[in-house]
Amino acid sequence: MEYPTKNQCPVARALDIIGERWTILIMRDMFLFGPRRFQDLQESLSGIAPNTLSARIKTLEASGIIERKLYSEHPPRAEYSLTEKGRALGPALRALRDWGEKYTSVQG
Amino acid sequence: MEYPTKNQCPVARALDIIGERWTILIMRDMFLFGPRRFQDLQESLSGIAPNTLSARIKTLEASGIIERKLYSEHPPRAEYSLTEKGRALGPALRALRDWGEKYTSVQG
Repeated sequence: MEYPTKNQCPVARALDIIGERWTILIMRDMFLFGPRRFQDLQESLSGIAPNTLSARIKTLEASGIIERKLYSEHPPRAEYSLTEKGRALGPALRALRDWGEKYTSVQG
Repeated sequence: MEYPTKNQCPVARALDIIGERWTILIMRDMFLFGPRRFQDLQESLSGIAPNTLSARIKTLEASGIIERKLYSEHPPRAEYSLTEKGRALGPALRALRDWGEKYTSVQG
């Protein structure tokens, strides 16, 4: 039987870019709330270390999934938003949300 | 602004269960090929350490996403397949595949 190699499989290629918990939760926040500042994300993703958040943002930016825009020049302030490539992950996130709503429950 | 806590967000709850690269690739193999033996998965997921594969299988089984069935009693041989809860992740995996096909490319 032929197996897809890592490279040939589009699921594996997608996971190379977004297959990490925080990465997906960063995108979730932008789908829910629109453009986000670093501090917004850090407040929302309670528990994320600032250097981890910074690294995930850089990866998403380098992959063309989010983009950085200055919304103030003095002082310089940036916010991040989804690109077209990032918004195209909407169906995947909605499918995860639907599954989570149906098959998992709020505990405690 | 109200943020969803980790627990209230169905995306985060879904990721608690399946938010790990190998976990998703194990499910991918079962969607593509049907029931799989441990050795099938290890061959397909080249690079996975046996103890990691074993741990991911146990997590998926404990979460009710895959189930273990003996297909031979002497010698005992088991295979793993998706449950209804696991098959319900089909739309999420298909959405990831579609995105990977459109926005990523085979390299090399």
